[in-house]
Amino acid sequence: MNYGYMGKWLKVNLSSKEMSDFDFPEDLLRKFIGGKGLAVYYLWNYAKELEKKGVNIKEMDALSPDNILFFSTGPVTGTRSPNSGRHHVMALKSPLTGSIGSGNTGGTWGAKLKFAGYDGIVFEGKSDTPVYLSIIDGKPELHDASEIWGKNTMDTTKWLQEKHERKRAGVSCIGPAGENLVPCAVIMNEIHRAAGRTGLGAIMGSKNLKAIIVDGNAKPQIAKQEEFETKVKEHVEKLKENGVTGEGLPTYGTAVLVNIINQNGLFPTKNWQTGVDKEAENISGETLTEKYLISKHPCWGCVVACGRKTKVELGPYKISFTEGPEYEAIWALGGSTNVNNMGAVIRANHYCDIFGMDPISIGSTIAAAMELNEKGLIPEEDLQGLKVEFGNPDAIVELTWMAAFRQGLGYWIGEGSRKMCEHYGAPEISMSVKGLEMPAYDPRGAKGIGLNYATANRGGCHVTGYTIAAEVLGDVDRFTIEGKAELTKTFQDFTSIVNSCVNCLFLTFALGLDEYVEMIGPITGWDITADELLKTGERITNLERMILNKLGITGKDDTLPKRLLEEKMPEGASEGQIVELEPMKQEYYKLRGWEDGVPTPEKIKELELEI
Amino acid sequence: MNYGYMGKWLKVNLSSKEMSDFDFPEDLLRKFIGGKGLAVYYLWNYAKELEKKGVNIKEMDALSPDNILFFSTGPVTGTRSPNSGRHHVMALKSPLTGSIGSGNTGGTWGAKLKFAGYDGIVFEGKSDTPVYLSIIDGKPELHDASEIWGKNTMDTTKWLQEKHERKRAGVSCIGPAGENLVPCAVIMNEIHRAAGRTGLGAIMGSKNLKAIIVDGNAKPQIAKQEEFETKVKEHVEKLKENGVTGEGLPTYGTAVLVNIINQNGLFPTKNWQTGVDKEAENISGETLTEKYLISKHPCWGCVVACGRKTKVELGPYKISFTEGPEYEAIWALGGSTNVNNMGAVIRANHYCDIFGMDPISIGSTIAAAMELNEKGLIPEEDLQGLKVEFGNPDAIVELTWMAAFRQGLGYWIGEGSRKMCEHYGAPEISMSVKGLEMPAYDPRGAKGIGLNYATANRGGCHVTGYTIAAEVLGDVDRFTIEGKAELTKTFQDFTSIVNSCVNCLFLTFALGLDEYVEMIGPITGWDITADELLKTGERITNLERMILNKLGITGKDDTLPKRLLEEKMPEGASEGQIVELEPMKQEYYKLRGWEDGVPTPEKIKELELEI
Repeated sequence: MNYGYMGKWLKVNLSSKEMSDFDFPEDLLRKFIGGKGLAVYYLWNYAKELEKKGVNIKEMDALSPDNILFFSTGPVTGTRSPNSGRHHVMALKSPLTGSIGSGNTGGTWGAKLKFAGYDGIVFEGKSDTPVYLSIIDGKPELHDASEIWGKNTMDTTKWLQEKHERKRAGVSCIGPAGENLVPCAVIMNEIHRAAGRTGLGAIMGSKNLKAIIVDGNAKPQIAKQEEFETKVKEHVEKLKENGVTGEGLPTYGTAVLVNIINQNGLFPTKNWQTGVDKEAENISGETLTEKYLISKHPCWGCVVACGRKTKVELGPYKISFTEGPEYEAIWALGGSTNVNNMGAVIRANHYCDIFGMDPISIGSTIAAAMELNEKGLIPEEDLQGLKVEFGNPDAIVELTWMAAFRQGLGYWIGEGSRKMCEHYGAPEISMSVKGLEMPAYDPRGAKGIGLNYATANRGGCHVTGYTIAAEVLGDVDRFTIEGKAELTKTFQDFTSIVNSCVNCLFLTFALGLDEYVEMIGPITGWDITADELLKTGERITNLERMILNKLGITGKDDTLPKRLLEEKMPEGASEGQIVELEPMKQEYYKLRGWEDGVPTPEKIKELELEI
Repeated sequence: MNYGYMGKWLKVNLSSKEMSDFDFPEDLLRKFIGGKGLAVYYLWNYAKELEKKGVNIKEMDALSPDNILFFSTGPVTGTRSPNSGRHHVMALKSPLTGSIGSGNTGGTWGAKLKFAGYDGIVFEGKSDTPVYLSIIDGKPELHDASEIWGKNTMDTTKWLQEKHERKRAGVSCIGPAGENLVPCAVIMNEIHRAAGRTGLGAIMGSKNLKAIIVDGNAKPQIAKQEEFETKVKEHVEKLKENGVTGEGLPTYGTAVLVNIINQNGLFPTKNWQTGVDKEAENISGETLTEKYLISKHPCWGCVVACGRKTKVELGPYKISFTEGPEYEAIWALGGSTNVNNMGAVIRANHYCDIFGMDPISIGSTIAAAMELNEKGLIPEEDLQGLKVEFGNPDAIVELTWMAAFRQGLGYWIGEGSRKMCEHYGAPEISMSVKGLEMPAYDPRGAKGIGLNYATANRGGCHVTGYTIAAEVLGDVDRFTIEGKAELTKTFQDFTSIVNSCVNCLFLTFALGLDEYVEMIGPITGWDITADELLKTGERITNLERMILNKLGITGKDDTLPKRLLEEKMPEGASEGQIVELEPMKQEYYKLRGWEDGVPTPEKIKELELEI
């Protein structure tokens, strides 16, 4: 028995409807842990198989039946270790970026998949009609989904839970955006939690796979129960004592960052034209808590509870209940667009949740459309009457749902900012890296996060290496480029571990590598060390990069939008700064053992990746 | 040659893709004129054919390939006779009501169809993939429509005009609502004009027919050119001199009625719970003109120009251009719902136009949902956070587009009030007749219109017999039931003529039966008299009724919602009134020569309808 795992992964061929169980040998699990790591290993081998069959994966359409989706948990998922209800989803190729597809999500679904008896599910091929998968008490079954095709995530979840008479079952599904193959579509679970980036929802839609419902009473076994429980208690204590996980996040949710980041002058505003939003207070965590909060809503096993149940009681965007928005969504929908209207942000975020879209990419692309329009680059007839202007709350609400249903300018919003800005002849206006819209920290105010955006495998991403924890929330000088290569590398590799465990990145505010050893060791029984673990994280980061190289992505793609490299931050606490990317990047490559974004044979050998 | 006609009708079998021309003998044209009359004749024969094949047309699904759509012009369409850009569309069965499908629309498409060389088009069967029809310079062709399937009416129109390099071609099409088989879907032409009732758009969607683009330079011939031109001049003069067509409608559009109808206490408010809207001024024609009007936008050949180009410059529903809303849309979306917010009404009406839905049915159904919710009959989870409450502007905007895309409660809004209220267990809350939502005049304040609603063949409809012209805008006592049977019958039969000519019902404010003789005579060369013409109108009304009888609709369906028959108007200038329907209805049947809603054999014989 592999402790911490159910020992069973499910492969579903949606074309033939064949399903089979498979497993991984223990040494392989130790090399890749689970979650993202194991998915990357699987994708690597799958990519090689495709190449053997003569498929050109550089040219492959991300929505072709040849793409695959891997839903994955890890040894920590579903245990009593804190914040372990999460799972990771990966695809060989993203329809939004053309790079790898990858998303990590909270909620309860990950834990419930384990309770249903499985560690992960791989979907291959494409069903010719809409289907959904149920795994109840260890038994996987495919069902006709024509009755829920078209329904939003709320209706879909309710329908499936009623149909299977399991009111607390986990439901992972796509909304209309995924069905409509919107490149910004996500996979939602528990209605409001998202495997939220790189367009995974469109891949699910392309396979005619509407949902996966999971439930059961199975439990992953723990190798050293007593030691595990002692460590769980210690870890919970540390999380409660920490200022971020014990106070900031529980009290204000992730939106606690709005004021902090804005005061530091790196809150990207008006599509990154500045880093200061003069009315950010209106969309801050403090305002959210005071005027819109119903209650907290933690994920499974969470001791932080950053999740928010919210409502809008006044103004034009009244809504009696929804969840969120998270910091990133608030920023993208309300900050980058300069809207600063919490009601509109909550409504637009609600539509992202129920129609299944990524609020970061959607909000950022709306902001880019506003800048395109400000510069007179969108023909009036394309606007169809809508006032696509910075500060117009209505524009974010309408363009969000219009993206899900591919209507009017919403078609381009759903395509993401890179394709939209290319279409309107101004690619430089897209604030994205590798086609993925960057999140809510202007790297001119924190250089390390700039290096991370440039080098993160999935594109402009903060949760690949969240150096903000050190640069803004910690003591590291945010403006220097000294030491940022090592900082970024360490954060990235450590995050690869977290995403492979799978648990919550927020734990890392309070728990370090040693505590991760204290989790994984007792659960699996492995005599693992901090060094081995960090090496494992590095291995996962590198193998993911090797897949990127197969997709044609190299050093040329490890860059940032011109605005961040050349235009000085015009005002605020980061005034006058640009990102001096090149020296950081070269140092980073050296530390990584990469040449122009490609791991060297020596590095590959060192990491035992000659596979 | 049949003067006033092109002499060619097109039959398109969408299943086999076969197309053929056909025509009608002149005696038949004289018996049914054109437009609605000819369509009714065609439908009658088609229904008999179906019956011979063993199809049970009472049970037939309106969205089955057995249903047909007839786009029809008449002898006046496309001539220089005023306001003759219109056409009529009919179907054997409506997906909204189960009764006959029928809609009349303005714009230019009707005239352009003639210029393209055809008088009408019948669509049979169902294409297995999306197609559109072009008729350019007499040549009909079917084309793949997969590139425009999903597009709204603006994008569809633009795409087709560019594709065919005919920027001024007429485009009749469905939006997403029709594609999504929403029973309240309409067929739109010139983006903002609608064959707007009984769900014709869903029938077009069920046939996978996206659009019909028409253009050309052909012209219907006039039998007596000189006489025709003299009469045209006289008619134009009369229209200009008339208070309604020469002043009220041109100045304020149809919305001129808001204040008039409200002051008379028959402006249905809060789903017909009262006839007085205390804030109607906010959504009046005067307010529309003062704050929202860009310019007038007449239909082809129109001397009235009630059409409005509008914008919203302030508040949350900003839009830089759209058209409308008409009186009925303002009332349904903004009066019946008690919203009284012109910005929200304009936005919701815009969504009806670009997604292709009937604002009367949509607005009325939203109002019914508000009453259901007020009475606690909609489970909270069905609301998905939306505040479905009288007076909430946001509810009308959101529920309108949600109806088009079948999302959440929008699913039921799109189904219409009858099905929705049955679903929520309160059928009496649906303010509809024969399943069609009634328009903007509470018959407790004008008894004749109540009789018309009850007996109009297509259901709760004002433009089948607009007795308001006499009862509120004219001198006839609106509260008496005396003489209302005859008034209604005359209005209905006269309207059948107008809709068969085809031209605009508004002409009848200024032009009577004699003027219609003066139009039709010179155009066709027929020595037609007023008596023959009125008899023709009666013939058309009766044959349409005979189709209804085949569909199982009889006297039991000629009724009104209980609220109008039993609840006294609670306030205002119509306070204390109910509709004394039964005596009017019996008198009407007697005048009509009907028994319990069914034409007697004697009447059928008299009207030469033994066909």
